[in-house]
Amino acid sequence: MSRIIKGKPVADKITEELIEEVKELRNKKIYPKLAIVRVGAREDDLAYERGAVSRCKKIGIEPEVTQLPVDISQEDFIKELRKLNEDNSVHGILIFRPLPKHLDETVIKYEINPEKDIDCFSPVNEGKLYEGDDSGFPPCTPKAVMEILKFYDVEIKGKNATIIGRSNVVGKPVALMLLNENATIKICHSKTKDIAKATREADILVAAVGRANFVKEDFVKDGSVVIDVGINVIDGKVCGDVDFDEVKNKAALITPVPRGVGSVTTSILAKHLVKACKMQNNI
Amino acid sequence: MSRIIKGKPVADKITEELIEEVKELRNKKIYPKLAIVRVGAREDDLAYERGAVSRCKKIGIEPEVTQLPVDISQEDFIKELRKLNEDNSVHGILIFRPLPKHLDETVIKYEINPEKDIDCFSPVNEGKLYEGDDSGFPPCTPKAVMEILKFYDVEIKGKNATIIGRSNVVGKPVALMLLNENATIKICHSKTKDIAKATREADILVAAVGRANFVKEDFVKDGSVVIDVGINVIDGKVCGDVDFDEVKNKAALITPVPRGVGSVTTSILAKHLVKACKMQNNI
Repeated sequence: MSRIIKGKPVADKITEELIEEVKELRNKKIYPKLAIVRVGAREDDLAYERGAVSRCKKIGIEPEVTQLPVDISQEDFIKELRKLNEDNSVHGILIFRPLPKHLDETVIKYEINPEKDIDCFSPVNEGKLYEGDDSGFPPCTPKAVMEILKFYDVEIKGKNATIIGRSNVVGKPVALMLLNENATIKICHSKTKDIAKATREADILVAAVGRANFVKEDFVKDGSVVIDVGINVIDGKVCGDVDFDEVKNKAALITPVPRGVGSVTTSILAKHLVKACKMQNNI
Repeated sequence: MSRIIKGKPVADKITEELIEEVKELRNKKIYPKLAIVRVGAREDDLAYERGAVSRCKKIGIEPEVTQLPVDISQEDFIKELRKLNEDNSVHGILIFRPLPKHLDETVIKYEINPEKDIDCFSPVNEGKLYEGDDSGFPPCTPKAVMEILKFYDVEIKGKNATIIGRSNVVGKPVALMLLNENATIKICHSKTKDIAKATREADILVAAVGRANFVKEDFVKDGSVVIDVGINVIDGKVCGDVDFDEVKNKAALITPVPRGVGSVTTSILAKHLVKACKMQNNI
């Protein structure tokens, strides 16, 4: 029987540490501020925004939401972004993605100031992630995975870590982060032949494939650590990429969905914001 | 018995294609030019430079070498680099690395114009590599590996590709490129436990570990493809990371060292230069 490892204790610990750090900053008359840029009002953006705003307030970070009309032109969008880049009171910028299709992300990503890009939109932060350069900001979700592993004392060095999924926001970055911590990494995906065989030797298995209950019992090694990054909705119920009921008897540790990785991301966002604020103030 | 796959036919084919492309450019009064920046006169830099200059001349690319004194200050180095960034007659810049220690590469890499950075020094090109964005320039050596696989009709999609080594210039980029071509990838390194076991299921094995004759017979699957990126010198003789005599009886295809991957890199450099030249001229 697995131990179910939830996200909340991880988020709580990070939050507590940040409350202290922000207290010290405020004592120095530095007031960390997060700018959230949302185009339109998609329900999933709004849900994440509520979580982020509430997390920020709890920590002492000022959240400021800029809502832009769905039909904003690229030119006007970039103007708004540049305003935030230049505003010294703003330390970090979160832009909800994907942007509406008429806005060209391949252009816009070069516009965000990399020093304020706390969720890895800019290719400069992707480059830093690739290099293993800690001065950048990786995407929040894979960083949440790493914080969970750290919190629950999972040894990474020398372990076989297998990632299912190769997206730029989860699969690839979490693979690079695990590699950076000295895991032997493997990335599987839709073109992998006999995926159950490919994942079965993993000591740490990260599922980020975006398919409900995709990871079955025969994918998983006895006594392994299974991290489920998937968020899928089946019959109105949220479930992960891992068939929890099957896998929970094999894994030693397993994250649930909901209340797993997803519970940690806003605390990572806040952590990145505080880091950005400190860097911008040479602290 | 393996088939030994040499680099020269690959380089020759690329060179022939480039000669035609450059002919067309010159007809349009566009004269592709490569700037090589060398600090001091290290023997390995000079050797590579000779190869690159001769390859460029053969193709019709103008090579221009800027030799800078070993004790050049960071400020002066950046001044020289900016001159080349701004010089519209220069389409690509190759800076020999590592730079002397007093020059801070973590600063300088942000100075090179990403559009002229044909050997992936800039984090912007690393970010593009990470994303799988073809508009950038990956490092030349891993790209040479990909060209060899393509030339010898090695199927990549769905295959198990294992890379030994995780450097930013070979291991990581070749892994990302193979992933982009739909291989299931694994990255092994010095912290991998039982490395022979970890590599033995690879259909494509890329050795980029920098240790002479490291890959033995028991690392290799029968009938696999072995690409040796290592360049080591033992008793004055150049050898690769693969124990060629042992492995040549197991692999179906194997690159030799010398005359393998290393023979292809300057043609990739030239290919990147022509690509940069075309992009800068909106062709």
